[in-house]
Amino acid sequence: MARAIITLTTDFGTSSPYVAQMKGVILSLCREVDLVDIAHAIGPQNIREGALVLADTTPRFPPGTVHIAVVDPGVGTARGLIYAEIGEQRYLAPDNGLLSFLIRQKLPQRVLAIENRAYWFPKPSQTFHGRDILAPVAAHLALGTDPALLGPALDGCVMLDAALPEKSACTVRGEVLYVDSFGNLITNISRDELSGLGDMARLTIECAGRAIRGVIPAYGAAMPGELVALFDSQGRLEIAVTSGHAAGELAAGAGQAVLVTGNL
Amino acid sequence: MARAIITLTTDFGTSSPYVAQMKGVILSLCREVDLVDIAHAIGPQNIREGALVLADTTPRFPPGTVHIAVVDPGVGTARGLIYAEIGEQRYLAPDNGLLSFLIRQKLPQRVLAIENRAYWFPKPSQTFHGRDILAPVAAHLALGTDPALLGPALDGCVMLDAALPEKSACTVRGEVLYVDSFGNLITNISRDELSGLGDMARLTIECAGRAIRGVIPAYGAAMPGELVALFDSQGRLEIAVTSGHAAGELAAGAGQAVLVTGNL
Amino acid sequence: MARAIITLTTDFGTSSPYVAQMKGVILSLCREVDLVDIAHAIGPQNIREGALVLADTTPRFPPGTVHIAVVDPGVGTARGLIYAEIGEQRYLAPDNGLLSFLIRQKLPQRVLAIENRAYWFPKPSQTFHGRDILAPVAAHLALGTDPALLGPALDGCVMLDAALPEKSACTVRGEVLYVDSFGNLITNISRDELSGLGDMARLTIECAGRAIRGVIPAYGAAMPGELVALFDSQGRLEIAVTSGHAAGELAAGAGQAVLVTGNL
Repeated sequence: MARAIITLTTDFGTSSPYVAQMKGVILSLCREVDLVDIAHAIGPQNIREGALVLADTTPRFPPGTVHIAVVDPGVGTARGLIYAEIGEQRYLAPDNGLLSFLIRQKLPQRVLAIENRAYWFPKPSQTFHGRDILAPVAAHLALGTDPALLGPALDGCVMLDAALPEKSACTVRGEVLYVDSFGNLITNISRDELSGLGDMARLTIECAGRAIRGVIPAYGAAMPGELVALFDSQGRLEIAVTSGHAAGELAAGAGQAVLVTGNL
Repeated sequence: MARAIITLTTDFGTSSPYVAQMKGVILSLCREVDLVDIAHAIGPQNIREGALVLADTTPRFPPGTVHIAVVDPGVGTARGLIYAEIGEQRYLAPDNGLLSFLIRQKLPQRVLAIENRAYWFPKPSQTFHGRDILAPVAAHLALGTDPALLGPALDGCVMLDAALPEKSACTVRGEVLYVDSFGNLITNISRDELSGLGDMARLTIECAGRAIRGVIPAYGAAMPGELVALFDSQGRLEIAVTSGHAAGELAAGAGQAVLVTGNL
Repeated sequence: MARAIITLTTDFGTSSPYVAQMKGVILSLCREVDLVDIAHAIGPQNIREGALVLADTTPRFPPGTVHIAVVDPGVGTARGLIYAEIGEQRYLAPDNGLLSFLIRQKLPQRVLAIENRAYWFPKPSQTFHGRDILAPVAAHLALGTDPALLGPALDGCVMLDAALPEKSACTVRGEVLYVDSFGNLITNISRDELSGLGDMARLTIECAGRAIRGVIPAYGAAMPGELVALFDSQGRLEIAVTSGHAAGELAAGAGQAVLVTGNL
């Protein structure tokens, strides 16, 4: 039988020993599992960034994969922990909006409250539910435990603002969602949302006081150092400096306004 | 049969190709092994930090796990390399104190000098014993080699100072051990050591010129930006700024004095 | 049957979710595979650094390992993608010089153009061929697909300058190739190239206005803080500050000239 897969997404920082503590707990309960790190450099307590990374990455995994997500400023308070099935994936996370962007893409088949302490550590700490509750629950799921045993069904869960762009007849107004590791500014404006504005090569994209003419097909279509707009591999409008660092050059980051004007 | 597990803890820096060289060596000798990274961002040559991470993390792994630890400023000198069995775990490390905090928690069943060159690379380099000696030895252990063949038994090994807090009738004087990836100041003062000082909610914690009243149960019990004291998931007193960065705000780091005064 | 191994080397940044997207794609096509990260902190679009890391690290893996390398400033342009067999290893990379230093060590048995879209994602993006082409091709190789099906044989591929040192009767003139995570300056001068200059202990090594007398056998042979020269674990001349950071102290980096003078 194929091994189960459990992935981990946290804001603990890269190569944090807190991540390894979770892995030790999982492996002690379930040896036949493959562990995959999604990302641990999510900005501390940045639920929105975590939600974006989960939405972009986890749907690419094999059906039945268990994804643990820990960006959890409310740990130790009354915020709940949830189990959700979305598409063919399974998720364990605090109920704080981390699964929002996944749920906007596809409604969950079910959401459960993680309340059955039989699958937790006996005395969970107040500061690290990822290790003491989510990791052992993930291991039990990998061992074949029926998710229905985890706790009662919920009607819904906490959702973040969609942060959708505003559209008019000849403009789309959006914002930068995050800066990737190359310094590219990834916006909330999708290729589809620009399709009504006419020829992509003739759009005007304004951001941080700079104007870009047209969307190019790939980095290689521009000269090194040129400020360009293109669609990233998720179909989102991205502002980049070829072989450079757009965020640094434009002094721009998450939340920066972006205006696209059509040429109709 | 379940695969063996080998973990790696080093000061090579995150995602260093030196780590991958060790993994290549291990996999070339033993294919049926799961490799787990504990941490590679240990401060360069910071044996004390490495010892803390090993003590906090490795006991959570399944029995028989082989843990390789490489924080090794003395590589190429006369310092020895040791194999140790502590609890149900097995360790390979330079004999420089890296296993100290594990050994203070639990005495080793045995400590051996790694001297039998039959399990080493034929011509080990003078600068990378992790790759040329510890990695092949770990692979041989994973293949089932009897540890007794590695070398002669030792009576002891190098130990670091305990750095225990000083206690009086109404105070405990300790220090910051390290700063975690959230900027929290983790101290050497355990929950047990404060139990004689009375009500936790009425203690005074002084650090870097600031005073905190009481230990709270979890981050969520405070307002964002508030300076607080709480116990971390290992039971150590921790000084934190909720949704902030205590080390930055207090300009404090490892070695900073911390004074806890009771309300008796 | 043993699982296949697939390694990943990229400039995406450590713990980038782009890496996890590639892993999700691979695991969705081939479950029985072990994934190993070589390095993801290659300088953005620094093909030379990627080529060095691949040459130093990948030959240590078991025969048949599939290595994916993505440092790809030309993604979306006419640059090709190649499959190469070098020694007992298999490589998938853009044709931009990434495999140069491997090929200088050992000529490839074969190089193929990756052109058969049957093994690609149906509609590959213009900005992420690592995920949309190389990851699925690697998964198919792990499943046993004959590489000959990937595309036509090539006579050669793009090669970087060798950056070999210049030798005279009593000097060797080279340069710093890169700075490792300890701040050590790793040069392009090998132990063999210095063998004609006489006693290693009496050489003079000049770099960034500083002169070092002699090559020492290991860090431990010097006092903390001392500027020293030694051979790294690959046999390359390295300039280091014991328990310090040579790159910072000498304000030196990649490309810095290094002159070694013999004592004949």
